[in-house]
Amino acid sequence: MYRFRLKIEFDGRPFVGWQRQSNGLAVQEVVETAGEALSGAPTPVVGAGRTDAGVHALGMVAHIDLPKNYPPQTVKDALNAHMRPHPIAILDASEAPADFHARFSCQGREYLYRVLNRRAPRALRAHHVWQVGPELDLPAMEKAAATLIGKHDFTTFRSVQCQAASPLKTLSSIHITQEKDEVHFGFYAPSFLHNQVRSLVGSLVQVGLGRWPPAQMADALQAKDRAACGPVAPPDGLYFVKAYYP
Amino acid sequence: MYRFRLKIEFDGRPFVGWQRQSNGLAVQEVVETAGEALSGAPTPVVGAGRTDAGVHALGMVAHIDLPKNYPPQTVKDALNAHMRPHPIAILDASEAPADFHARFSCQGREYLYRVLNRRAPRALRAHHVWQVGPELDLPAMEKAAATLIGKHDFTTFRSVQCQAASPLKTLSSIHITQEKDEVHFGFYAPSFLHNQVRSLVGSLVQVGLGRWPPAQMADALQAKDRAACGPVAPPDGLYFVKAYYP
Repeated sequence: MYRFRLKIEFDGRPFVGWQRQSNGLAVQEVVETAGEALSGAPTPVVGAGRTDAGVHALGMVAHIDLPKNYPPQTVKDALNAHMRPHPIAILDASEAPADFHARFSCQGREYLYRVLNRRAPRALRAHHVWQVGPELDLPAMEKAAATLIGKHDFTTFRSVQCQAASPLKTLSSIHITQEKDEVHFGFYAPSFLHNQVRSLVGSLVQVGLGRWPPAQMADALQAKDRAACGPVAPPDGLYFVKAYYP
Repeated sequence: MYRFRLKIEFDGRPFVGWQRQSNGLAVQEVVETAGEALSGAPTPVVGAGRTDAGVHALGMVAHIDLPKNYPPQTVKDALNAHMRPHPIAILDASEAPADFHARFSCQGREYLYRVLNRRAPRALRAHHVWQVGPELDLPAMEKAAATLIGKHDFTTFRSVQCQAASPLKTLSSIHITQEKDEVHFGFYAPSFLHNQVRSLVGSLVQVGLGRWPPAQMADALQAKDRAACGPVAPPDGLYFVKAYYP
């Protein structure tokens, strides 16, 4: 088998998420089906991370094993052709060494969360942002975000369904910026727990709305109790941006 | 009656266009229905320009006549509430003098056309860009665009269904820029003919693909013949950006 590395953009709206599941169509499944259509053989695909239903990707990385050493441009074009009309695009395909593993070789993951911060509805950005009406207090959210950086037990900010062995994770950085009528939350970490970004954004927005004082974020973290988390932000605004490799 | 000026964003996908028509739902109709729901009376709405089915707006301007002098914030919020879940957003509402007319007072209109210039499919931008695979030659398109500026008979570049009395129009400017993986075409003119922007973009893309030499644009213009136009660009990539008033 020949291994190829893929960079993938997708609209998460019609999918149950990245990972194959019994309850609906997953992005992974569409890519695998396209690989099989290209090669005539089962072609397992592994992604850098899982994403929830409705979560998007600007640059998911995956590897696919194909039985022939196709030119990378052929892999890209053929997969794209076979995936039509699903809103999934292979942006890049390249040959990868046999020991490259999209998930286990990955050393860092970057997520973006987009909040449309205005009273008027989403219109052109329906399903692609979370709309929050009242003006968010960025300095307050930045203060709260700073207390999350580092290695912590993130039990408060992970789904009760999270399958990770340990709730201990290192959160490397959170960047909060105003982009016209949107507030963007950028997250970087070696890896994330299930629902961690959406849980953190939901809680940061509580701070931004003045419902939580910034210090409550550290209290919530230290509580190590899911009940201390703010309302989890919807999947609409979340994007898997990039996976980092050595 | 009290007149209000509205600034409107909409996703054109589900609509037959801005203007009320017998064959489907128009944006104008949704706004008028919301106005009637707010006020209990018929509330005529007039827009700065018509748009085709599938064409979007970032800042359409319209006026609406209401039987009560509502606070502008109420007009905005109530119309937005009554229009749910249609992908239309009133971004701004303000009191307007009785002689303000969104169409007849308008002195300039600005359009944006977005081309996704890559081989991979549209994915996250489905219905919001026109995808053109081969790399476009920007300097060649700029050269061709320059020959369109000024007052001309634009018969070649208007729909055969165009109802304007004269094909003579002044095209003030065309700006072509590379924005990451997109090419943006910005158009400004006092007013446009039916399908003029889509006809111009379709022809400019012929130049960008090397199928037309840049000089063919002037020939097409001078032909004053619809048959000399390139393939009309799809509505997906077109946005009504702004209307200008004295």
